[in-house]
Order: sequence, then structure tokens, then C-alpha cells
Amino acid sequence: MHDFSSVFADRGKRIEGSAIRAILAVTQQPGIISFAGGLPADDAIPGNIIAGISMQILAENPSVLQYSITEGQTPFRQWLCDWMQQRYGIHYSINETLITTGSQQAIDLVSDLLINPGDHIIVERPTYLAALQIFKKAGATILEALCDEQGMILSSVEKLLKSHTIKFIYTNPDHQNPSGFEMPVDRREKLVTLASKYAVPILEDGAYREIHFAGKPLPPLASFDNPSNKIILFSQTASKIVAPGLRVGWIQGPEQMISKLTQLKQSVDVHTPVLNQEIVFIYLQQGHFEREISHIRRVYQTKALYMDKQLKKYASKVLTWHTPKGGMFIWAKTMKKINTTTLLPDIVKKYGVAYVPGETFFAENPDTQTVRLNFSKSTNEQIEEGIKKLSLAFA
Amino acid sequence: MHDFSSVFADRGKRIEGSAIRAILAVTQQPGIISFAGGLPADDAIPGNIIAGISMQILAENPSVLQYSITEGQTPFRQWLCDWMQQRYGIHYSINETLITTGSQQAIDLVSDLLINPGDHIIVERPTYLAALQIFKKAGATILEALCDEQGMILSSVEKLLKSHTIKFIYTNPDHQNPSGFEMPVDRREKLVTLASKYAVPILEDGAYREIHFAGKPLPPLASFDNPSNKIILFSQTASKIVAPGLRVGWIQGPEQMISKLTQLKQSVDVHTPVLNQEIVFIYLQQGHFEREISHIRRVYQTKALYMDKQLKKYASKVLTWHTPKGGMFIWAKTMKKINTTTLLPDIVKKYGVAYVPGETFFAENPDTQTVRLNFSKSTNEQIEEGIKKLSLAFA
Repeated sequence: MHDFSSVFADRGKRIEGSAIRAILAVTQQPGIISFAGGLPADDAIPGNIIAGISMQILAENPSVLQYSITEGQTPFRQWLCDWMQQRYGIHYSINETLITTGSQQAIDLVSDLLINPGDHIIVERPTYLAALQIFKKAGATILEALCDEQGMILSSVEKLLKSHTIKFIYTNPDHQNPSGFEMPVDRREKLVTLASKYAVPILEDGAYREIHFAGKPLPPLASFDNPSNKIILFSQTASKIVAPGLRVGWIQGPEQMISKLTQLKQSVDVHTPVLNQEIVFIYLQQGHFEREISHIRRVYQTKALYMDKQLKKYASKVLTWHTPKGGMFIWAKTMKKINTTTLLPDIVKKYGVAYVPGETFFAENPDTQTVRLNFSKSTNEQIEEGIKKLSLAFA
Repeated sequence: MHDFSSVFADRGKRIEGSAIRAILAVTQQPGIISFAGGLPADDAIPGNIIAGISMQILAENPSVLQYSITEGQTPFRQWLCDWMQQRYGIHYSINETLITTGSQQAIDLVSDLLINPGDHIIVERPTYLAALQIFKKAGATILEALCDEQGMILSSVEKLLKSHTIKFIYTNPDHQNPSGFEMPVDRREKLVTLASKYAVPILEDGAYREIHFAGKPLPPLASFDNPSNKIILFSQTASKIVAPGLRVGWIQGPEQMISKLTQLKQSVDVHTPVLNQEIVFIYLQQGHFEREISHIRRVYQTKALYMDKQLKKYASKVLTWHTPKGGMFIWAKTMKKINTTTLLPDIVKKYGVAYVPGETFFAENPDTQTVRLNFSKSTNEQIEEGIKKLSLAFA
């Protein structure tokens, strides 16, 4: 067979197959309790409503099967603008709105638009694994802002802004993947002020903003942006509030950037599938989001609190963690000085339980005592059994 | 407003908004006869069958709404492998098969995998507009192989292979967009032999292979590839045989490359929407393709021959062209020395008829006397009227 590896380009070379992915493939075997996934709970996906809406669309609007414009369906974009105005008082025009094939694509497009190899960006420490994969592919020099339980520490961000030319700041302020941290309102406002001072764009990833257990989600960073001088690209997704398999997200921000992102998207996949856009549009427009979201939040909250309870019961002497207020994950750290990455294969084999080693969420100097535990896909029995086993494994 | 243009990265800068796109926006106005589109005929999209299949899937298989694997649905990939074996005698494994979000994404991923800025690739002269956009974004130095009515002239290809280090050859051998040319069997075989000699991969874009008016489509270049030493990446799409709005395509080729393309795709959009994959899978599996394809071919053939007839009637003294044997376009050249790009705004205004200037399909030294005429979306009346007007405009 030809070996083409020598002709791979830099972007191809910089994408690396994850060794962890191979280990996690093992966790699909029956009998393994896996906290390694990142899938929404099946009963948080409103399958019947989506089926009904799909049938209506396909019966009434066969044009969803044709090619369409790259920007996304105009009525859907207009509706999203109205929704943002009404929910958060943010004014966006349809020219400041692009529909994406999941919010993953939004991160990739922004990366393509702004990162030359060697360019500096700021991310949270730790941060979303797949975003790191994208930024590494683009050749970014990734700088980590230190975080506490309230997300990015502003003095750490400012230090980086002062010492480097920063292309953008990537943040996931709502129940972050993996840490579960939520940035409070005052820090959101101050972070926007800080970024504005340096005229550095912020990519605000709102993936988990609706999976907020109690009360209303906090206002997005974008609500503190200067309407006549926007610096925030705000990406959201239907993956956690409608269904991830549809691959529909959207990004809103300064028209000049949205326009360029649209040109890039045209070259990438022409447009997001029209049927999928219309399903999400009609779902939101008909008010299903408002009716279903409290159920969705309750599903996650119940699982989260159950895992938290089991951790308190079995693991209080081997792990430290924070009780989550939203999202799909508990981020924990072993008290003992161990390496959760190198131990994983043995733990899967000996205890039949899996997790994602925290190492993968760091751009540099990984904290190898950390793990990400997903609570959304396991039964209560699996959660109790799995946490019991993990606490033995980490003891 | 902030001006971010100075911080755009090279890839963002290299994507350029097309001036033609702006002109073509005008052609959406009522009363304009547009041959500028590239949309399938609406009655070549089997909407009722797709609606029925969708309902069945959503009722029986709610897991289509969940996240899935980047490679694409395993049963779908296995079915495609069996289909390729049965139709063309090509053996592919599922590990040599990746489902993409349209075949546009396949071109973009291959470009990402292989092109560093400055790298040389070979394309047909003229070639697919959107592929040029992708290759330019990646920073490729694009070399054009001269073409006759049978596609790439082999001596021109070999001259380029001898004089440059070529990353890959991009070809659209079946009723090419824009030229309509079809590469005959013997030239296909020889091109594969030639590329193999230089160990240069070929990206074979099979977008129009099924829109073949009479008899069977020719065997793909991939059928001449060495099974134990593959160099061909063969991309296909459901856009012309099922529905473009679904955005489903697939690419098959050497496992080493498919594996890397899969990693790249993971960072781009995680996976192609599962519902859309399943719709195309069930459509093909249930034999609808075989039942519908002769109707689809007839729809396009009837339009093509009608436009050809009108050209003979009105334009035989102002244009030269070839009667198409497939695809969606007639490629024509004005006899008079004029520039079809600069004339377009006036022609739209004065005659109410639009086309795509051929210039956009060339990587260098454009032939500005050429135009691409789409016949799939206009009525017979529009075709006659439009060709009549065009022949006046170009006289």
C-alpha cells in the first residue's frame, strides 16, 4: 500500500487520533459502566414532537429538500433575532446571524477565519476537548487563562492580553464542559469590558446555557457587548434543547465577521441541511422549547444530584468535586497523587468503569489527577455502582 | 464599529465574496429568466418517497436524534461498500468509507488533509467553481490541465506531473460542471495509470455520474485503481439522486487517508446528521434509486435537448456549444470577442436573462467568452425565451 503520510499537509498532521478514543471504544462493551460519554439523556430528546414536526414540514414544504442559501433559512434567522431581543435584549439583524451545522462548526469556522499558525488565543483552563482539537489543527498557540469556580480569573486574562497579541478569547461560561463552572454576572460584564479595551473578539460558546437546574440561565456575555461596537461571537446549539443528531447551531455577532464566516461556510458544506433547520425552527417557534425545557432540566438535575449523593456516600475521602448547578458533567480530582490517564485501561479492565481523563482538557501542563464524569446517560443503579467502584480504584 | 479585517487569518482572507454572486442575487427577481443556477429540477426530487421514509425512521428509530460516530452509520457504510462491489466491482471496506455532509465537504476535507499554502494541485480547465474556492482558501497553487471534449488531455497532465510536485489531481469526469464533458473509458484507465506512476492521489468527484442520459454511466476512475495500492479518493453525493437539501455524500479510498479525513471531519461537524444519513440509506436500500433514476435522467435529458434545440434555432451564429449527454449544464462560447463577465449586469438589465460567466471556472487566464447555462430549473417557455434573448445579447 502507498504510504501517503509524507504528503499530508500541516493541518492534516496536526489532527491527531486520540489514544483515549481507542480506550473509550472498549467502554462500549456490555457490562462496562461508562461515565465517559457526553451524550444527552435519551428522555431529554423530544422525539415524538420532532417526528410530528418533520411530517408536517415534509408534507407542506417540499422545498426543504432543495439547495438553499448558505446563511440559513431567512425566517429562522429572523426568528432567532427576535428571540435574542426578547430573551436578553440583544439586537441582532439577520445579517449578523449564521446557521451552522452544529455549534462545533461555528468554532471551526471562527478558527479558520482568525487563526494563522502561531497566532495566540486564550482559552479556559481546562476547556472543551473538541475546541482544543480545532485550535490545534489551525496551528494556534493556545494560552490558558487560570480559572476558579467562577470561570476565567480576570487578572490572568489581562496578563495574557497585555503580554501577547491575542486573536480571540474562547469561553464556555455556562456550566462549562468539563469543569461545570458557571461565570457569575459581574465577571461576565467585566470580561466583556476587558476584551473591549483590547478590541479582542470573544467566542462565547453557549452550548450548556439552557441546562441550568434552578432559576433562569444567566445573561450571556453577549448581552454586555456594545451594540454599536460588537466584539462577541455568540454561538448556540439545538443539540441540548432539541436533538444533537440534527446538527443545527447558530452564531451571531459583528456583521463583518458573520459575513466572512458565511463565505467560509459556503466552501465547507454549502449550507446546513434545510429539513434540519426547519425542524429546529418550527420546534422553537411553536413554543415547544418553553414547554419542554423544565422537563429537560429536571432530567439532568435529578441525575446530577444522584451522582453527587453517591460521591458524598462513597468518594468523599478519595475525590474532591463541586456539586453541579447545570450541564452534563461532574469534574473531580483525586486526592491521591495518581495519573488518571495511565490508570484508565486497568480501571476499565479491573473495575468495569470508565471516565474521561482530565488530561485531555488541558492545552498545556495537564492536571493528571482530574476526571470528567458524565451523569446524563447512566441509570441510578449504574451511577451508584460506578461511583462505588471508582472510589475503590482511586483509593 | 470595530474593523476586524486586519486580524483575519490567511484562510479567511483568501475566501473572497464573489462579485458575481451579488449580480446573481438580482436574478432572483421576478421576470428574470435565470440560467445561472445549479439546482436540480424539482420534479427530479422524490419528495413523497422521502417523506414516507422519514416518517418510518422517526417512528421506529429515535436514536437518529442522538449523537453518533464521525465515520457515519455503520450499516449505511457497509451497504455502500456492497453497492460499489456490485455496480463496479470495486472492493471497499467500511474503514475505507466516510459519510460526508454533502460531497462539497469531501473536497474541503481532502484539501485540508493535503494542501499546505503553495502546494501544487492539478485541476481541469475549466473546473467546478466551488472546488476552486476551496483550493484557493487552502492556498494551493492551482495548475490547469488542458481539456478537450473528452476531459483532461493526458499529455498536459503528464507535463505538469513531470515539472511539479503535485499533491493531488482533481477531476469530475462525468458530465463535468461546467463543461459537460465526459471522459471516455480508455482515458480514465490511462489517467489512473499515469497518476499511479507518479504516486499522486486522484480526487474523483462523481457528482454528476448518475445524470447520464442514455445507457449506463461509465465506470468510475476508481474501478481502474490498484486494489492493493489505491490512489483514488472517490466522492459521491445524494444531492442529484435523492435530494440536495439533505446534504449527504460519501468518500471512499485508501484507509490511511479516510482515517485522517475522519479525524478532520470530527473537528469540523462531529458527524453528518443521522436522520439525513438514514433517509438516504433507506432510500437506496429499498431500491428506490433503481426505480426512480430513469425518470430523473429523462427529466434532465428532456430539458437539455430542449435547450440544445433552441440554441440551434436562435444561437447557431453567435454561440458554439456541445450537445450534452448528461449533467445539468450547457457550456457555450460566444463567436464574437466579448467579455461575458463585464456584460452580465447590462444583459440582466436590458434582456432580463442571466447566466454564469465562464470566467469563474478558470484558475488562471480565464476564457471570458464562455458562459454556463443551466437547463434543469427553467420551463420550456423560459428556455426558448431566454435563449432567444441571449442570442440577441451576444450577437
